[in-house]
Amino acid sequence: MTMTPRDCPLPEFADVLAAAARIAPHAQATPVLRSHGLDALAGCELHFKAEHLQRTGAFKFRGACNAVFDLDDAEAASGVVTHSSGNHGAALALAARLRGIACHVVVPEGALRSKVAAIEAYGATLHHCAPGIAARESRCAEVQRATGAVLVHPYTDPRVIAGQGTAAMELLNAVTGLDLLVAPIGGGGLLSGAALAAAALAPRCQVIGAEPSGAADAYVSLQRGERVTAFTPDTVCDGLRGTLGEPNFALLRRLSVKILTVEDDATRAAMRLLWQRTKQLVEPSSAIALAAVLAYREVFAGRRVGIVLSGGNVDLDSVAALLAP
Amino acid sequence: MTMTPRDCPLPEFADVLAAAARIAPHAQATPVLRSHGLDALAGCELHFKAEHLQRTGAFKFRGACNAVFDLDDAEAASGVVTHSSGNHGAALALAARLRGIACHVVVPEGALRSKVAAIEAYGATLHHCAPGIAARESRCAEVQRATGAVLVHPYTDPRVIAGQGTAAMELLNAVTGLDLLVAPIGGGGLLSGAALAAAALAPRCQVIGAEPSGAADAYVSLQRGERVTAFTPDTVCDGLRGTLGEPNFALLRRLSVKILTVEDDATRAAMRLLWQRTKQLVEPSSAIALAAVLAYREVFAGRRVGIVLSGGNVDLDSVAALLAP
Repeated sequence: MTMTPRDCPLPEFADVLAAAARIAPHAQATPVLRSHGLDALAGCELHFKAEHLQRTGAFKFRGACNAVFDLDDAEAASGVVTHSSGNHGAALALAARLRGIACHVVVPEGALRSKVAAIEAYGATLHHCAPGIAARESRCAEVQRATGAVLVHPYTDPRVIAGQGTAAMELLNAVTGLDLLVAPIGGGGLLSGAALAAAALAPRCQVIGAEPSGAADAYVSLQRGERVTAFTPDTVCDGLRGTLGEPNFALLRRLSVKILTVEDDATRAAMRLLWQRTKQLVEPSSAIALAAVLAYREVFAGRRVGIVLSGGNVDLDSVAALLAP
Repeated sequence: MTMTPRDCPLPEFADVLAAAARIAPHAQATPVLRSHGLDALAGCELHFKAEHLQRTGAFKFRGACNAVFDLDDAEAASGVVTHSSGNHGAALALAARLRGIACHVVVPEGALRSKVAAIEAYGATLHHCAPGIAARESRCAEVQRATGAVLVHPYTDPRVIAGQGTAAMELLNAVTGLDLLVAPIGGGGLLSGAALAAAALAPRCQVIGAEPSGAADAYVSLQRGERVTAFTPDTVCDGLRGTLGEPNFALLRRLSVKILTVEDDATRAAMRLLWQRTKQLVEPSSAIALAAVLAYREVFAGRRVGIVLSGGNVDLDSVAALLAP
């Protein structure tokens, strides 16, 4: 019953298309936002895909919803399980509730309280564990054995990757002629899904991942040509501390995705700028994409740039620290 | 050249219509936002007019733009002047810049630094004065005499009232069957404009002003049937500290507008809720409208309610204090 990343086939663009149809009754078709002020500041034309306005406040709902509604009734009967410190857990909980099945979420110690509260509010059963990927996976396997629930991995599951790809697909359909498309990268679900969509819909569009310097495993992995998994994340971007997944790595390599690393200070400044100029409450893990554009101006100068604003689940109790210069 | 509130005729709905046409090339037609979560919490159906997404981050641009573009060339030649601690100043500065004329803004000591910076960024000339309406008006008259600039009062000017009325007009056109329409009240420009629009477009819709308990001059004025001007505002809503204007008072009385007073704690809680649930960065002076709905549940239960989210110019340096429980 246990499904490990190694068993996962790589999703294709057809899976993204199927996901779009599957999640359409449940997910928001989020708007694309513009800001002339930010265009002027960045020296390029920015198109923001507003996934912080997605249900549960993050793009994660797309992948979770696709995975849950792709299960046949027999699979779905015992519910779903995942490990998540945040947005994926809430997304899976809501998707399961919409299908009327059980949801178990393994939550590592140290996860943001506000995000854990959201997972619970959407009706999931919480299972606590120590931090770190090993503890998360082993606790998850325990819950699987005990309940028979189907694992929906936060970023290696091909149904999740295909679901996340629908965000970029909508953006590419809404805005023609994008030269570059920037999305944050943690485990790589969003970015590999975006790369699938761009390769099919806009092959000249360069897909770029924005990664925290303090958790730059994807950057190093693509440089070395092999997946690096031994690192200790140190970044304000709580949603980007995960380890690049195997299928995600394979897709990013195959589709020539580039990674730009960003310092946390630049991410915080970009978040502040987004709050001020667009009045949109995006979280640090989301603001990093604009931070990359501002930090590598020469890459983007004069180009038409898509940015995925991936989520808006800011911990309002620690907002002063986030906004400190 | 000096124009006092007493000289101002009361605007009519035809002026709102004319304003809509006049500002259309410049102002945003802002979206109407929904939140099922907030509907469930409030026990009614909420339709949020997103004026924090208006240019300069507040509805104020509508009135300022209408006033500036209504001037004939001879009037416009010497520019415009106003007194403002915030959003109206920035709005007038941008409107003047779009018309290519000078703008002078008298700014009282104690105004939010971030708002004063915005006024300056839009190209206005700043003139500082002591706080309080008397000092503001006398400094303003000085600047008028020195420059020949036309006064555009922040809320008593009939062109400003008519311009503000376009926000409610758009909301009423977008959402049919509103039972109630709630807008914040400071000087009364937004609320009296909204009342004009509602009286013409939805006469059964009750218009309600949300006013801070610590600056409840409109509430007291309508209770007594005469305008109260002697009070010292004490509220976190920096945009609602003004004194109800004479034409505004007359319109609110004539159009049977009701006022609900709201404690600052309730306003802060509503702001937090809006940030969490809608990811929209609205300022306290704006969140007060939702706070009124939550504080007077019986008035709104089961009804279709329009809410004007009037602005999003939050001072990010003091955000922790705003969010404290």
